Amino acid sequence: MARAAAVPQPVVVVGAGMVGSSVGCALTEAGFRVHLEDAVPTHAQVAASLGAGVAEPADPDAVGLVVVAVPPRLLADVVADALQRFPRAVVTDVGSVKSRPLAELERRGVDLGRYVGSHPMAGSHRAGPVAADPFLFLDRTWVVCEHPSARPEAVAAVEALVQACRARLVRMDPVEHDAAVARVSHLPHLVSSLVAGGLTDLPPEHLALAGQGVRDVTRIAGGDPRLWEQIVGMNADVISVELQSLQRRLERLREAVESGPEALVAWLEQGREGTRRIPGKHGGAHTEWSRLVVEIPDAPNALGRLFTDIGDAGLNVEDITIEHDPTRRVGYLSLDVEAEVQPTLAALLSDAGWSVEPATD
Amino acid sequence: MARAAAVPQPVVVVGAGMVGSSVGCALTEAGFRVHLEDAVPTHAQVAASLGAGVAEPADPDAVGLVVVAVPPRLLADVVADALQRFPRAVVTDVGSVKSRPLAELERRGVDLGRYVGSHPMAGSHRAGPVAADPFLFLDRTWVVCEHPSARPEAVAAVEALVQACRARLVRMDPVEHDAAVARVSHLPHLVSSLVAGGLTDLPPEHLALAGQGVRDVTRIAGGDPRLWEQIVGMNADVISVELQSLQRRLERLREAVESGPEALVAWLEQGREGTRRIPGKHGGAHTEWSRLVVEIPDAPNALGRLFTDIGDAGLNVEDITIEHDPTRRVGYLSLDVEAEVQPTLAALLSDAGWSVEPATD
Repeated sequence: MARAAAVPQPVVVVGAGMVGSSVGCALTEAGFRVHLEDAVPTHAQVAASLGAGVAEPADPDAVGLVVVAVPPRLLADVVADALQRFPRAVVTDVGSVKSRPLAELERRGVDLGRYVGSHPMAGSHRAGPVAADPFLFLDRTWVVCEHPSARPEAVAAVEALVQACRARLVRMDPVEHDAAVARVSHLPHLVSSLVAGGLTDLPPEHLALAGQGVRDVTRIAGGDPRLWEQIVGMNADVISVELQSLQRRLERLREAVESGPEALVAWLEQGREGTRRIPGKHGGAHTEWSRLVVEIPDAPNALGRLFTDIGDAGLNVEDITIEHDPTRRVGYLSLDVEAEVQPTLAALLSDAGWSVEPATD
Repeated sequence: MARAAAVPQPVVVVGAGMVGSSVGCALTEAGFRVHLEDAVPTHAQVAASLGAGVAEPADPDAVGLVVVAVPPRLLADVVADALQRFPRAVVTDVGSVKSRPLAELERRGVDLGRYVGSHPMAGSHRAGPVAADPFLFLDRTWVVCEHPSARPEAVAAVEALVQACRARLVRMDPVEHDAAVARVSHLPHLVSSLVAGGLTDLPPEHLALAGQGVRDVTRIAGGDPRLWEQIVGMNADVISVELQSLQRRLERLREAVESGPEALVAWLEQGREGTRRIPGKHGGAHTEWSRLVVEIPDAPNALGRLFTDIGDAGLNVEDITIEHDPTRRVGYLSLDVEAEVQPTLAALLSDAGWSVEPATD
């Protein structure tokens, strides 16, 4: 990677909520000067007291970068205002939807050479400046949405911001961004809310049967309705089409449930395949697992000894399955371990006298 | 609670998968004799080596309780077989659906006086006997489904099993059970799969934007399609009706998205309300939070001192929000703390010189 460009400073963060304050903390920690603004002055003061910068006005002509972190509905107004108030500054925002605010700014005839929108894919169930976290963006995806009028130095400044916050830069066109977040963020939120809303007319005895599954599926439905209404509303055109597609797929699911095993298994397989496509938590690839097969002889306490030897190896075993050979009185233990430690475990078990082979499938 | 009735022993567990082996471990730990059976003998041996009992046949005439822990499709066959093989034993099962296996047994004319179905609401993403866990059921709901032909002593034996596994007993009619799990378990699973399946045609660049939300919503879609096909298939009548209702609600959601803020906020509020109805993780009530409001005077570093004093109190603060008084130069810090510690924190902060009051809302 090329040497990181510097963030043009001082930086002004407009909106000292959780995301804005966290940007302030991350930039302050990286050595940049940050000024905090909020419609509620106490919020800026709290953010400042937590290390997000200073709650004092910056010299407008000196400001190098403005980060607008306000609710979606206010984005176009606040960005336009920032471009006017800070005549030399590059202006970005951290809103969840990118096309409509850009279109609104274009409609107003604002010169957008110094504006480049962006979107850090990081959140928290907490809100407000007291949830400020300098590591919120660490290794998270942060999308930068270039547009045709943006000047190259403005794009570079926003990309430098992403690097300073130690996030992973992804470049994407605003329209494509909104299509992607509709599917991986907005639709999951609405569906979570759909399931959760279906719990409201259940008697408490039925809710007592709730396990971890429904808790996971409905967790994000606990988010702030007024914030999510704005996000969904800003991306309503895309989401409306997605919901129609969801309706058609739900109809196919109902047919599968009514038509029997094969159709339903195929449908569920597709869901499982979808879960496998999601990259690792912090954007990395899924861990690569490698399988090792150990023969379990027909001897007293063979399994007990084998478990002891595996435990002694002290390596992270993700999964263990047992197979048996119907033609001989032996069984096989399959161990799924991280690909890189597989040779080590194989050697340790071989040394301990076990018959070990890599899996063939 | 009355003194726990004894589990009639020895116990036979048929099916040494994750749930069956865990029942074996919990009962063994509670001092009961357990025999393990599995169509794959190695599975029973693995379970035995992990403390779930012995992998040897029991004297059929002596067996007091049989726990059938096999896939849903095999339930009726294996329960009927167990009633015949163990002529004095009470027989239960741990299947996820209760009406259809019972109806199937009735259809075959099996005498069901010694059979009482049950369903522990506990699972794991792991499968097989190596996932055996004696604490799997600790404080989890375990539904016992009495039916008109069941003898009282059979019901008592299954309830004793629930107590021995340290689960929370819930009594429910089989039809009501299936209606409840359709809504709190089966439908969430299918919807999770619906969202996950929608990810399969996304390009990797779009999937790179996936955050924690979509991961949570789709986690359970990673479950075994062949197991879930059986569960859903067994409860297809109820689920089909639920899916129709979901289709109607999805249609209303689409209308809300297209019609503007108020309808969508109301819809999202209903979802949030649903998340609040789910009882605490282990079946307990949600923690009751109580709010405390502290005045922040307009003095240097007032917030810093306040955060220090709150930290010194060493109490668990769930959330902190800032409000301000537009008419005066003061702010307010709202602290959400467990209701029972609220008076303590209020006293500590008062003593430290802060102006403290309980919240009025």
